[in-house]
Amino acid sequence: MRAELISTGTELLLGQILNTNAQFLGQRLAQLGLDVYFQTTVGDNGARLAEVFNAALKRADLIIVTGGLGPTEDDLTKETIAETLGLEMFLDEESLTHVQEFFKLRGRKMPETNKKQAQFPEGAAIIPNKMGTAPGVIIEAAGRIIIILPGPPVEMQPMFNETVVPFLKKKIGRNNSVIHSKVLKILGMGESTVEERIKDLVDEQTNPTIAFLAPRGEVFVRITAKAKTEAAAGKMINKIEKEIRKRLGDYIYGADDDSLEKVVAGLLKKHDLTISTAESCTGGMIAQRLTNIPGVSDNFMYGVVSYSNEAKTGLLGVPPEIIEKHGAVSEETAIEMVKGVRQACGTDLAVSVTGIAGPSGGTPEKPVGLVYIGFSDRDTTIVQRFLFTGDREVIRWQTANAALNMLRRYLIKYKR
Amino acid sequence: MRAELISTGTELLLGQILNTNAQFLGQRLAQLGLDVYFQTTVGDNGARLAEVFNAALKRADLIIVTGGLGPTEDDLTKETIAETLGLEMFLDEESLTHVQEFFKLRGRKMPETNKKQAQFPEGAAIIPNKMGTAPGVIIEAAGRIIIILPGPPVEMQPMFNETVVPFLKKKIGRNNSVIHSKVLKILGMGESTVEERIKDLVDEQTNPTIAFLAPRGEVFVRITAKAKTEAAAGKMINKIEKEIRKRLGDYIYGADDDSLEKVVAGLLKKHDLTISTAESCTGGMIAQRLTNIPGVSDNFMYGVVSYSNEAKTGLLGVPPEIIEKHGAVSEETAIEMVKGVRQACGTDLAVSVTGIAGPSGGTPEKPVGLVYIGFSDRDTTIVQRFLFTGDREVIRWQTANAALNMLRRYLIKYKR
Repeated sequence: MRAELISTGTELLLGQILNTNAQFLGQRLAQLGLDVYFQTTVGDNGARLAEVFNAALKRADLIIVTGGLGPTEDDLTKETIAETLGLEMFLDEESLTHVQEFFKLRGRKMPETNKKQAQFPEGAAIIPNKMGTAPGVIIEAAGRIIIILPGPPVEMQPMFNETVVPFLKKKIGRNNSVIHSKVLKILGMGESTVEERIKDLVDEQTNPTIAFLAPRGEVFVRITAKAKTEAAAGKMINKIEKEIRKRLGDYIYGADDDSLEKVVAGLLKKHDLTISTAESCTGGMIAQRLTNIPGVSDNFMYGVVSYSNEAKTGLLGVPPEIIEKHGAVSEETAIEMVKGVRQACGTDLAVSVTGIAGPSGGTPEKPVGLVYIGFSDRDTTIVQRFLFTGDREVIRWQTANAALNMLRRYLIKYKR
Repeated sequence: MRAELISTGTELLLGQILNTNAQFLGQRLAQLGLDVYFQTTVGDNGARLAEVFNAALKRADLIIVTGGLGPTEDDLTKETIAETLGLEMFLDEESLTHVQEFFKLRGRKMPETNKKQAQFPEGAAIIPNKMGTAPGVIIEAAGRIIIILPGPPVEMQPMFNETVVPFLKKKIGRNNSVIHSKVLKILGMGESTVEERIKDLVDEQTNPTIAFLAPRGEVFVRITAKAKTEAAAGKMINKIEKEIRKRLGDYIYGADDDSLEKVVAGLLKKHDLTISTAESCTGGMIAQRLTNIPGVSDNFMYGVVSYSNEAKTGLLGVPPEIIEKHGAVSEETAIEMVKGVRQACGTDLAVSVTGIAGPSGGTPEKPVGLVYIGFSDRDTTIVQRFLFTGDREVIRWQTANAALNMLRRYLIKYKR
């Protein structure tokens, strides 16, 4: 079954709100094994909605339209679709009572305009709306299923989950296949290198398929399998995943909902190790990301944001002559910082970061994006040099990623 | 001039990422006074992209396509559009050098697949990409303007701002009317109170219009004016803005691209004051947000993330008996933390935060969301109690907002 999404609302085209409905519905339909080939956004305009709806009628079996169910004049989704399909509108008394009750409960009189929210195309099944006054609609006509839902996510989402999902599951029956996907997350290896290593797998495969995403300096590999059951799809994914893991090794830091900080926090807990951080250019981002994981307080002891040279020499005990001779952004300073914070905090491990996030402060020898990351345990101290590109925020993000990844690579090999 | 947006990427249809590009481009085109009538999302599939592109060619003067400029095989936007328009592809040596340089700088060899990023439809003007390896393209053909940009927002946005906006401004000429809007940002006052205070203005206005947005505990008021020139629209906005500012006072912390941390960093610089932070439940978020502002290093000296009790008693000198008697999350601890960090760092001002971000750790007396924020200058120390709702991330975000806002309200009244 091919599905198509239509989002209505001039506020979407003007960029005044983000289209989270398209994302929500895309995810849910994928879980149901339905392919979405097109998603179109159109303003509050009958003629243009009709144009988009007609295009969808030609190429999709299931059309889900969101928005345009409000009481105002520019809400015309139901009316436009009824006209396109040649259906009359009728007034549903029960829905009218529901709308009236909604206002009564809030001590207000129902405005006359809200009456249109109780009108529906003939033959339509009504989807109740517990969170607002606009019911949704299911129409089966012209060999197609058309579902109309209100625009506000807080109303649309429960209506979809409670009424539309069971309806679609029944329609799909047992003959349909399920789409299941898994995302592997990679850090420290570029997109093209990842592709080179697994290109033959990508080329060989039609089911599961393998695709690449590259958000903010990471690489995601998405495996998508289509099968009769979720278990069968899972099995297909497992097989390819094993092969990919063999080729990419521990560059893969996690899967699906894993974040780098979650993986690191889990490893710290597993090995019962404490850590402290000394951050210059990341300004607390590493600490902030680690402490976003509930329960990390047994392992993350404390962090220092040593933004000024005074903070580096004072609290962390970096010798002023080191900064004078080599600069605040240098291998030597990163080493002294990480030694200093580990000692001051008495932790098992420590990480330090010093770099130039930009936009100013760069020189030909030390350009914007130059970063040194120090790491220290009870026995050794190491430092790594990186050169990142991007704006200030991206450089800081990539720096925090690199530091957390250094930590992760140490922890996966850790033996007491 | 009618504009149309096409977003490509199967990950968008599957709901794996949110389509923020459509929002960004919608906003920017509205500012230029260009009407966007349709926005379509299509997967990484040549035939379907061609179908969508052909529909757009029939109804739009300007078509902006994002995504599908990567080095992998399923990146086929340029190729598909060239084929649809009957254009040959050519290799641009300069772009190839740029891609090669990009890899060289990182000490890596350019994979053969990246070569296709330097290939363009004949007659195309190339949009340079400072943040990545995929240049954009401007094609003028078949009486239409077609602009192709990469999918990652961090690459796409500067390319649009720096190259596409000046290009479009020249094309548009002087006859178009302009839509201009301004967003006022409010903190510390609920959406319904804001609405109550300015409801009569909202009802009276048709141009400019006034709308509300409420992201993550803040309230945004957007004023939108349509006029012949930017200056005329600006004048209309100014008039309403003045009236709104009269009613909401210094609950308005900024406008448009202002962030709370940017405003606070600006005020610190203006008054030449130094600050340090001691964060518990926010785990470094306040420091991280402040240090995201370039040039803040003269004012933000250092920050401490005192996640454990040991960190509070050790580094900050909070008396253990205070924590024992009142708990780590208490008025008394917040006061000792803020005094301790200001003293240790020798700064003019200090902020401390201690609270329960959840999901666990709450009790009936001290529920999840309870936060104490301390503030101290050379003369006085104050503490405020907050009770936030939401998940861990939202509570942490709101806490950082409240702390930065306390600081802002102090600084706007500051007199040496």
